[in-house]
Amino acid sequence: MRFVVIGGDAAGMSAASRAKRNNPDLEIIVFEMTHDVSYSACGMPYNIADPEREIDDLVVREARVFREKQGIDLRTGHSVHSIDPSSKTVLVKRVDGQELEMDYDKLLIATGASPRIPDLPGFDLPGVMTLKKLEDGRRIKHYMATHGVRRAVIIGMGYIALEMVEAFCAREMEVSMVKPRPILLPWMNREMASVVEEEVRRHGVTMHMGQEIKGIEDSGSVLRVYCTDTTLDCEMVLVATGIRPNSELAKDAGLDLGPSDAISVDRTLRTSDEHIFAAGDCADAFHVVTGQRTWVPLALRANRAGWAVADNVTGRQVKLDGIAGTAVFKVFDLQVARTGLSVQEAKKYGFEPLEVMIKSGSRAHAHPGGSPIWVQLVGDRKTGRLLGAQLLGREGAAHRVNAPAVALHAGMTVQAFSQTDLAYAPPFGPTWDPMLTAANQLLKRM
Amino acid sequence: MRFVVIGGDAAGMSAASRAKRNNPDLEIIVFEMTHDVSYSACGMPYNIADPEREIDDLVVREARVFREKQGIDLRTGHSVHSIDPSSKTVLVKRVDGQELEMDYDKLLIATGASPRIPDLPGFDLPGVMTLKKLEDGRRIKHYMATHGVRRAVIIGMGYIALEMVEAFCAREMEVSMVKPRPILLPWMNREMASVVEEEVRRHGVTMHMGQEIKGIEDSGSVLRVYCTDTTLDCEMVLVATGIRPNSELAKDAGLDLGPSDAISVDRTLRTSDEHIFAAGDCADAFHVVTGQRTWVPLALRANRAGWAVADNVTGRQVKLDGIAGTAVFKVFDLQVARTGLSVQEAKKYGFEPLEVMIKSGSRAHAHPGGSPIWVQLVGDRKTGRLLGAQLLGREGAAHRVNAPAVALHAGMTVQAFSQTDLAYAPPFGPTWDPMLTAANQLLKRM
Repeated sequence: MRFVVIGGDAAGMSAASRAKRNNPDLEIIVFEMTHDVSYSACGMPYNIADPEREIDDLVVREARVFREKQGIDLRTGHSVHSIDPSSKTVLVKRVDGQELEMDYDKLLIATGASPRIPDLPGFDLPGVMTLKKLEDGRRIKHYMATHGVRRAVIIGMGYIALEMVEAFCAREMEVSMVKPRPILLPWMNREMASVVEEEVRRHGVTMHMGQEIKGIEDSGSVLRVYCTDTTLDCEMVLVATGIRPNSELAKDAGLDLGPSDAISVDRTLRTSDEHIFAAGDCADAFHVVTGQRTWVPLALRANRAGWAVADNVTGRQVKLDGIAGTAVFKVFDLQVARTGLSVQEAKKYGFEPLEVMIKSGSRAHAHPGGSPIWVQLVGDRKTGRLLGAQLLGREGAAHRVNAPAVALHAGMTVQAFSQTDLAYAPPFGPTWDPMLTAANQLLKRM
Repeated sequence: MRFVVIGGDAAGMSAASRAKRNNPDLEIIVFEMTHDVSYSACGMPYNIADPEREIDDLVVREARVFREKQGIDLRTGHSVHSIDPSSKTVLVKRVDGQELEMDYDKLLIATGASPRIPDLPGFDLPGVMTLKKLEDGRRIKHYMATHGVRRAVIIGMGYIALEMVEAFCAREMEVSMVKPRPILLPWMNREMASVVEEEVRRHGVTMHMGQEIKGIEDSGSVLRVYCTDTTLDCEMVLVATGIRPNSELAKDAGLDLGPSDAISVDRTLRTSDEHIFAAGDCADAFHVVTGQRTWVPLALRANRAGWAVADNVTGRQVKLDGIAGTAVFKVFDLQVARTGLSVQEAKKYGFEPLEVMIKSGSRAHAHPGGSPIWVQLVGDRKTGRLLGAQLLGREGAAHRVNAPAVALHAGMTVQAFSQTDLAYAPPFGPTWDPMLTAANQLLKRM
């Protein structure tokens, strides 16, 4: 049996490796259009922050290992141009222009996602960067090293933008951030978002919300970003205005697409064609709170989905429960975490959300060295269910989000969650964990 | 209606305060035998570590506030000597020897727990200390300040002992620890316990396991602790060999006792007498994993049980689910956490425990500054249920225990837990959170 994989990053290589472990006799061919496979894309901002480190430090396993040690036929520089589900073949183009047709028994589409780039003048200029693939990180580091970049403009203020602003500041660059929408992190509780904003500003970063971008111009010596009310000069622009799933191949093959045009998969990761799977940033998932399809392209899901595909291709029967939309990121010294639904999302899905936001401490009241922790909890008035949580703090916020994440998987009510036995010792929090204080407060409103 | 509370610490004062908030017309009388109420006992080791801080910094709310602001009739220096359930009265003795009888409509026993002191020669000598009440902490600090204490011997190696060894080392004392049982933290995975042992030893502490204590002698200049094979000289001895519930009053009143002679309470915190409640370290609780009664005297449960008593006394109907036995403590730079059952406990309760212990990282593989995290998970072969977890690490261990704690409350299987969507970003952990890696490994054995 031949298992063909399109895409050699997290989902694709997880699937290929595990499928080979499950069944060493399986023929596995992976087509990857770039020359990079299996790397930690999420580590790029931290790598870029340090000029001494090579971007290739982020490679988890080299292509050579997959080929020689694992017996996977990994073909880099191979780009798949079309899929024909009726004949079960893919059409592949090599970097040198040669074409080949390959038939498959089972196919995995793991083509990832790509940055959304606004269709505006100047976004194709040298020095205008995006960050998704390892090659992007390489280009950014090389450009910084060779072009004396002192000033950067970041377009967008999402996860990547907020991780990259820290990286640029670590490189002692002057950074401006700009976005068209008037508020920062619109899914977040407003008071908490303002703490994040303050954290960025206190590092000397200028933030311009509510500024439409008109275009970028190369003035000869600088790049000039034209916005509604301002013009920002710099040597480098990072475009971090979101990503979109690479689902064109699937669409052209007649496969169903779901939210945000991600490839629709069932709980076994099968697309609308039973021989074709999809996993990673190109595919959707079921949300454990809504039960509906959603698209939250993050690394854990990509790896987990890759494994599940491998199991299902090799004759095991694996179904994934879905995702809770858990995410964490670092903004300078702040830990920002979320899981489940925001108030707006909850409304959209027909819940009657009630919200509470509390400020507690990262350590017991009499324990030295603590700092504030903010917790927002969202519950459903009708059913009493916990719907989501957001956390923020200088310490103790990142891992605390996992407790409500598990509660969401279990479909717990706020009442039940408020009774959970969470850990307490003075160096690690107050007697009533901030999550519990928030749950107790939310209960009063329900 | 009159609500009488015996004991003015966590459970007692939580109950009194909340009952008054729920029903301002309720007459509430609290009898506390000492002069300290409402303090953070758990903070004492950290306070003792710092000679500049007053032990009274640990007082959460002063007696005056309860009396004047909250209208609670709080009587310190009042010790309750007996309860007569038939006449619904308590017999109280004041510090000055006067006796009074007080009748109640509802009674709460919140008498806490006391250190177990071995019945051996010399344990009543000056300089032989225990640590449970605020007065104990005061005595220890005073003794250190006035007796030039350079060397301490700690008898016992449980939570308190391991927190106090750090405090004594911070005070630049030479510390020896000694215990009769041959191993450290017997409930813990052996490899993990050895990491804890190494952490203590590398701070210059000598540890003597498997040494029976014969007695303590005052040689005139030093205290001498006689053990099976060794004799330890010091200026101060801390006896930290465990605690026992203060349940004599309840027993003498004919109330049922449960595990470890703690006062038996139902989910509404009622004892075997419907008008008498018990809460805090003197009372037992249901364990969410076993469904059986257990005695795990910790601060969160005491506060939560106090609130539940207040609600039930004032006409609300509150039932507590129970505890998962979640605990965390700090041993020098290590975070040690547990929830649920150890392998031995699981066997005792009729499960067929399977265990796994994994070593992972506190940050992503390519992220600088990480350190190891150890996770042990216990599951039940028959039902697939998650039974317990233990964690250890220099960062990221303390709050990670809350995810399995919630899973235990939800009765999750290891399979379901392994599918949970836990947070990932390179500064905070690997893509597969160490909890998930452990769950995946445990699944392979099930």
